[in-house]
Amino acid sequence: MKITLLILSLLLGSCSFIYGHDFTQYVNPFIGTGAVDQYSHAGNNFPGATLPFGFVQLSPDNKDYPDNPCSGYDYNNKTIVGFSHTHLSGTGVEDLFDVMLMPAIGDIKQANTNPENAPSGYSSNITHDQEKAKPGYYQVNLLDYKINVELTATEHAGFHRYTFPKSSESHILIDMNHSIPKTIDWLPCRMIAQIKIIDSVTVEGYRITTGWVKGYRRVYFRAEFSKPFKSFAMINGTEKIASQQLANGECVKTLLDFNTAEGEQIFVKVGLSATSNENAHLNLRTELPGWDFDKTCREAENKWENELRKIMVKGTKEQMEIFYTAMYHAFTQPNNIADVNGDYPATDMTTKNAPDKQHYSTFSLWDTYRAAHPLYALIQQERTASFVNSMIRQKKTFGFLPIWQLWGLENYCMIGNHAIPVIVDAVNKNIQGIDIEEAYEAVKASSLVDHPYSPFTVWEKFGYIPEDILSQSVSITLEMAFDDWCVAQFAKKLGKTDDYIRFIKRANFYKNLYDKQTNFFRAKDKNGNWLSPFNPFKYGDNGNSPYTEANAWQYLFHVPQDVNGLIGLMGGPNAFIAKLDSFFSITAGMSEKN
Amino acid sequence: MKITLLILSLLLGSCSFIYGHDFTQYVNPFIGTGAVDQYSHAGNNFPGATLPFGFVQLSPDNKDYPDNPCSGYDYNNKTIVGFSHTHLSGTGVEDLFDVMLMPAIGDIKQANTNPENAPSGYSSNITHDQEKAKPGYYQVNLLDYKINVELTATEHAGFHRYTFPKSSESHILIDMNHSIPKTIDWLPCRMIAQIKIIDSVTVEGYRITTGWVKGYRRVYFRAEFSKPFKSFAMINGTEKIASQQLANGECVKTLLDFNTAEGEQIFVKVGLSATSNENAHLNLRTELPGWDFDKTCREAENKWENELRKIMVKGTKEQMEIFYTAMYHAFTQPNNIADVNGDYPATDMTTKNAPDKQHYSTFSLWDTYRAAHPLYALIQQERTASFVNSMIRQKKTFGFLPIWQLWGLENYCMIGNHAIPVIVDAVNKNIQGIDIEEAYEAVKASSLVDHPYSPFTVWEKFGYIPEDILSQSVSITLEMAFDDWCVAQFAKKLGKTDDYIRFIKRANFYKNLYDKQTNFFRAKDKNGNWLSPFNPFKYGDNGNSPYTEANAWQYLFHVPQDVNGLIGLMGGPNAFIAKLDSFFSITAGMSEKN
Repeated sequence: MKITLLILSLLLGSCSFIYGHDFTQYVNPFIGTGAVDQYSHAGNNFPGATLPFGFVQLSPDNKDYPDNPCSGYDYNNKTIVGFSHTHLSGTGVEDLFDVMLMPAIGDIKQANTNPENAPSGYSSNITHDQEKAKPGYYQVNLLDYKINVELTATEHAGFHRYTFPKSSESHILIDMNHSIPKTIDWLPCRMIAQIKIIDSVTVEGYRITTGWVKGYRRVYFRAEFSKPFKSFAMINGTEKIASQQLANGECVKTLLDFNTAEGEQIFVKVGLSATSNENAHLNLRTELPGWDFDKTCREAENKWENELRKIMVKGTKEQMEIFYTAMYHAFTQPNNIADVNGDYPATDMTTKNAPDKQHYSTFSLWDTYRAAHPLYALIQQERTASFVNSMIRQKKTFGFLPIWQLWGLENYCMIGNHAIPVIVDAVNKNIQGIDIEEAYEAVKASSLVDHPYSPFTVWEKFGYIPEDILSQSVSITLEMAFDDWCVAQFAKKLGKTDDYIRFIKRANFYKNLYDKQTNFFRAKDKNGNWLSPFNPFKYGDNGNSPYTEANAWQYLFHVPQDVNGLIGLMGGPNAFIAKLDSFFSITAGMSEKN
Repeated sequence: MKITLLILSLLLGSCSFIYGHDFTQYVNPFIGTGAVDQYSHAGNNFPGATLPFGFVQLSPDNKDYPDNPCSGYDYNNKTIVGFSHTHLSGTGVEDLFDVMLMPAIGDIKQANTNPENAPSGYSSNITHDQEKAKPGYYQVNLLDYKINVELTATEHAGFHRYTFPKSSESHILIDMNHSIPKTIDWLPCRMIAQIKIIDSVTVEGYRITTGWVKGYRRVYFRAEFSKPFKSFAMINGTEKIASQQLANGECVKTLLDFNTAEGEQIFVKVGLSATSNENAHLNLRTELPGWDFDKTCREAENKWENELRKIMVKGTKEQMEIFYTAMYHAFTQPNNIADVNGDYPATDMTTKNAPDKQHYSTFSLWDTYRAAHPLYALIQQERTASFVNSMIRQKKTFGFLPIWQLWGLENYCMIGNHAIPVIVDAVNKNIQGIDIEEAYEAVKASSLVDHPYSPFTVWEKFGYIPEDILSQSVSITLEMAFDDWCVAQFAKKLGKTDDYIRFIKRANFYKNLYDKQTNFFRAKDKNGNWLSPFNPFKYGDNGNSPYTEANAWQYLFHVPQDVNGLIGLMGGPNAFIAKLDSFFSITAGMSEKN
């Protein structure tokens, strides 16, 4: 493949019309949505409609209480229960699935309130022959109802076009209970919701919900319909009440009824906000004042084209699909959760305002600090400044930078404080729009204030993390040393010598877990004894092992800040090269694979 | 007793200096704080410092997880674990107890995290000989620590004066975990909290907590100290970390350390807000810019004097104490939860602004619509307008008026929609500052939109509440009919004839449950059959009985809207008088008493 990196991204807006949709054509949103054989997993991606880094990501969900894949959609599952407006892409834990709409015909089966028995509810069969997806657009034919569904999106709004058959029993359902399963102990999903019928073409509502984050997600919506519904019913729990205009409850839905002619199209626009119904309305009328679905699709595709053409590669069609779909996935998050006026939900449950109208969330930093963020720092420089500013805002209310931030809230998932390398990289690349002193203060606080998986008091006392104090100790030690090296570089740049000395010392703590007997990084207890037995192939998950989603072999080379130091520990270049070679040729017994 | 009601409340401000503290001297805040013998209950009142209708109600709590009495303080329990800033007075369910401070000496015992074993923690013994309370002031000597504690309050701030002995181990603890028990299934208390050390004289924090309300209570504070603490430690869960400046967690506390000379006084001012830390700070600096504790006490006492003198009675000292303490309790809530700038927490988890700077909450309407609110409508007319406007604001976001509103949120406790008589009474008394059309819209919505214990669809279908559809059916039927009569009067006043006809018809539904065989209001099932067996002495609690906290005898006379109708049902004046006489003379078997 040949790669051309366009640095002058300012020129790109005008270029798109010269080149046409050269690159979106290679994006296949179904890549990553399903296991291809019994040995593989789904990529946990979703096929629905979104803008680059968009807040609304409108996509089909297979079942009432999506869990696996985390995106809600499995290509191998040929049912759809509805179309919800928010999704995670590629994560290892499920959440979101907010504000689900579903068109249907005839008697509506109530969704099963028992997640054990899902799927059920309003679901329809589909066939992939009658399903399409491209950047900013998704289409499927609901076979049970003979309804064709098309979806597109703006940053804060979903746009639905439903083509109905002739029927006096056509419906559109809004389900505010649709969520992750409500039965997972470590992922407690509690719901308080409201739906309010404003008039015969307008519905509003909200829900406050818990799940992956240790906090309360607020989700507000306003839905506008192109055709008045002839009647409606509110469903509160298991009770269905005709003409009930408002319901508050743990499980609320509304059913809107229409007469439709053969081929009649009904459009629904749904504005979302994380701060208020007023802002959901503002977002909607700002971004989607009219009803031109095709125009919205074209604008979405153009926005994707402008992002994707930032790297121009040539290769086989398959290579081009793999490359541009991966790039599409890279630009699917983080998401700007601020409203068009800049309001965003702060970690302290207040609403604050971002002057740049951007507050990004979905920071899965353990996964993204190595590759995705360095890429953004090259070809998403303006957004990188906004990413950094969003992270600094978390520090102001929460006390430290994001680790895994979802919907503006922290879930402490995974180890390390890898907002630090992202910020230091941005500062070193001289990305504009970042307050350097504020950034440094946030970086330093995140390296000194103890928080889950970051016991800095222990770190400075022992010079490593003892496994009997905190598990995943080898991985934490290696990653914390790297983050500390980044802090040291930042301190040096700002001439903060005392800080530099403190953090560069900590950056070398990784050496304290190098075992010259086995030539691996290995766990110690708080008395300084190596833990036995030791097996460098033994895989650790997320606890009860010194290694995080890896083994001692895989963590052996995680000293990016001091490759020469690592070479020295191993006994010099030859020993290092031999070890590196072995890493690519060793075969572990099947029992040690994951 | 001779009673003089002063209608011209405008004159009262200037009067207070003429009369001196004639009336506050009769208030005994310890009345209602403990059972006087084995046959009585506590009144669930608290002895601490508050202004009339104040947001902050700073009072001692006996134990770590207060449950009974609901006020946190039992006169018969001679330990105190700390002083928290919010309390309920006279309720039947416990909640609040926000932001607890406790001064102590020496080694601090961690509070027991297991509520089953409470009391424990930092508690000290006390003796009532060394305890005092009057309106706006509370004092106690903590015997274990030899610390004298004095408390006073402004509307949004608590003011503490601690007189320490000589010690190099003096402490003040801030406990953000202190709450109702965390083990009650139907009252699930979940906590997310933060404490942040701002500098050596300032601490901020917040907590988002669940409990009695079906929602999330936000509580923010800012504490300022008259003397810098020499050191501090953060306690997060069971972990105590020296010099840790910030903690987020489910159970967070901070311990501040001081050297004190014999008799040294340390003052703490704590501003509270239900919307943000910024507003907690604003409230504090607006209401308590200085450190004059005695002046704050005097101002508090003057404010009470001005309220209490609205009714002037003469009697024995005991009669005066009973009367003015009851009046003091009547003016202890509802509470203005709006910040000094008018910001308040709306039911949809947004922060909204009340132009009149007042948003009242703690509306225990089933308990207060018969006597307390009619009293307020006479002698708290300005506040009555604000009460009504606060109720209307709930309707705007929540869809209907308060039933039992706590911290701006609804808990659906008890039956009926008794904001309606309060509002209609205010309108009929021509109380100024109420938007009549908005009030009517709110009243009507609250009489038509089904919500818990108010199934209007069932009401209009059957003409009564069938016990097999919803329990407490006789009480709900009688109370709903009364509320409907109030709606009808309001409709009539506004010339809304159709509404008048609809609601006056519903106001007569009470007749459908009058059983001429037994001459009592009695439950029917949905087929119209009287439920048997019937025993007019049988007490009902809050469900599983047709009667709510009463029996058929007690509900027999609950037709305040149509006494002549009730006389007719009973067979005329003579039969009615005989029944009424019986009511005062009957004796039920002990087994039927409650």
